[in-house]
Amino acid sequence: MTFNIPLPDPTLLPRIQQKIDNLNKPKGSLGLLEELAKQICLVQQTLNPELRHPCHLLLGGDHGIEREGVSVSPRCVTWQQMENFTRGGGGVNMFCRQHGFKLRIVDVGVDHDLSHNPNILQRKIAPGTRNFLHEPAMTPQQMEQAMAIGAQLATDCATDDHCNILAIGEMGIANTSPSSLWLSLLAGVPLDECIGAGAGLDTQGMAHKRQVLAQALQRFRSYGDERPEFMVQYFGGFEMVAAIGAMLRAAEQRMLVLVDGFIMTACAMAATAINSNLRPYLIFAHQGDEHAHAAMLRHLKAKPLLSLGLRLGEGTGALCAYPIVDSAVRMVNEMNTFQKANITKYF
Amino acid sequence: MTFNIPLPDPTLLPRIQQKIDNLNKPKGSLGLLEELAKQICLVQQTLNPELRHPCHLLLGGDHGIEREGVSVSPRCVTWQQMENFTRGGGGVNMFCRQHGFKLRIVDVGVDHDLSHNPNILQRKIAPGTRNFLHEPAMTPQQMEQAMAIGAQLATDCATDDHCNILAIGEMGIANTSPSSLWLSLLAGVPLDECIGAGAGLDTQGMAHKRQVLAQALQRFRSYGDERPEFMVQYFGGFEMVAAIGAMLRAAEQRMLVLVDGFIMTACAMAATAINSNLRPYLIFAHQGDEHAHAAMLRHLKAKPLLSLGLRLGEGTGALCAYPIVDSAVRMVNEMNTFQKANITKYF
Repeated sequence: MTFNIPLPDPTLLPRIQQKIDNLNKPKGSLGLLEELAKQICLVQQTLNPELRHPCHLLLGGDHGIEREGVSVSPRCVTWQQMENFTRGGGGVNMFCRQHGFKLRIVDVGVDHDLSHNPNILQRKIAPGTRNFLHEPAMTPQQMEQAMAIGAQLATDCATDDHCNILAIGEMGIANTSPSSLWLSLLAGVPLDECIGAGAGLDTQGMAHKRQVLAQALQRFRSYGDERPEFMVQYFGGFEMVAAIGAMLRAAEQRMLVLVDGFIMTACAMAATAINSNLRPYLIFAHQGDEHAHAAMLRHLKAKPLLSLGLRLGEGTGALCAYPIVDSAVRMVNEMNTFQKANITKYF
Repeated sequence: MTFNIPLPDPTLLPRIQQKIDNLNKPKGSLGLLEELAKQICLVQQTLNPELRHPCHLLLGGDHGIEREGVSVSPRCVTWQQMENFTRGGGGVNMFCRQHGFKLRIVDVGVDHDLSHNPNILQRKIAPGTRNFLHEPAMTPQQMEQAMAIGAQLATDCATDDHCNILAIGEMGIANTSPSSLWLSLLAGVPLDECIGAGAGLDTQGMAHKRQVLAQALQRFRSYGDERPEFMVQYFGGFEMVAAIGAMLRAAEQRMLVLVDGFIMTACAMAATAINSNLRPYLIFAHQGDEHAHAAMLRHLKAKPLLSLGLRLGEGTGALCAYPIVDSAVRMVNEMNTFQKANITKYF
């Protein structure tokens, strides 16, 4: 599956900069909001940007590697939380309500029959991936399928909801494991430094996780195929590959993408490795508490908007950052210029 | 003027903690939001906190020390911006609109006749303070007056608007100078480390500012009175002392106070030195770009919610942090417990 992502035309940049510098404030005094405003104007190719109908994708999937005890939570939590989200009681629900996001809850590969629930979009590829300690987590066909599912979801948000800013979150017990492996492979960070406590592993649990992932990495290397696509197929969760597809398609349609914490940043990193034109469309929302997230953000040269120590997943960090993005857009559209305000221009 | 601020009764804390720990998320996984929720529940003495009718005070005043050329902007910018705020075109206006804050624009001591403007509350004590390079910025009577003005404004917000969360911002060319001096005196930080570039001084301007403030500090010390009240009177701007009064009265009425950047944190520091019971009511919103702000926050043991590199003033940092405070309150009220959600509790 390929994506034709246009690189934003930089010709407009001087005019954007000029507009921002003429707003009645000392130059640069709105800090990150000014950087963000420039990015959004560039992506939307306008001096009057707007945010339209924000949507959130909550993608769920289970992981074969969970069988190795790499996570503090049992796999049944994935489907239980998916059902809980449809009742409105999760972290993702309250923040979607707070910021006016339309929420789509999608089963891409949960290991439980959720087909009775009309509030879950049924896109199950298989009841969980295979165990990548022994074999690739998915077949090449399954990977294509997950990517296409994510891409179609992004298209739906654009077409059905006229959305131009997309947030993505995940529910998948054990998905910090593939995220750590992707970081190690894509950024060349030693595996040990990529592994964290997930939802709350103790020292013994961490040591076990390290050992399992090191073994999995060794087996992966024996294939001699280091393309990011193969890495994604080998370790990926269905929900993660769907997120990659959604990000790439969103950018293809000039939508902004709000990137959440550790797992979604791993997906952003993998997606950027597949198509680097994605990068200008990504807004990094939150620096999570997970140990290796900082290394990921450095690799992507990203300055996240928030750092609230969240490690819940579900895209909660992306959602919490939305008002900041809105503030940046308002700055460009609503703040007076020095001339209009009759103020002595003081740089 | 004295304030009787009740210390929040800690008896409720175990029940608050229990409620937060039973929400369906790994313990602590909502990071700073959980800390914030605890603080708000304690201040409001409830397990079901609420934010009611947020208000913002924009306090304006001029500074005698501006005559020494310690600021990059001329003093006329104070009144020009005050007028601009009444036309809705400032940074403070757009963020008040975004987050539903009622804005009060108050002339506490601007060096310009603003009495024709019906949208500015007329509380002028004098057209600017005196020059503290040579004498105390205000008389003890003026200080009492400024404090009382701020206190009454907080009362008005509570009484007229049923507000229980107050943000405060300032407009006052040269007010980083008194802020630096307060930091040095209250936290024992060498003066040189307390002085920053304000709205954009160059190296030469900085050197001059250092020299002026060092001289002013020397003269202050010659009085041999190190009470925080005298320090406030000696260096303070009218808008800053009014902010102190507003903070103390707000806490007296169990309102939360959103503390903005460098200048408002200086006021919070001075107010806390006057009455330490204020501290639990303060929510530190933003770590500003001004050089010495980090030292202030350390002194107050404060972890700010945002760090966006803002240095505009007007209370913009406080306003931008409001949705995070709202998120914390929603977490306590709207998130399901593990029991209610039927989820295997995974700590």
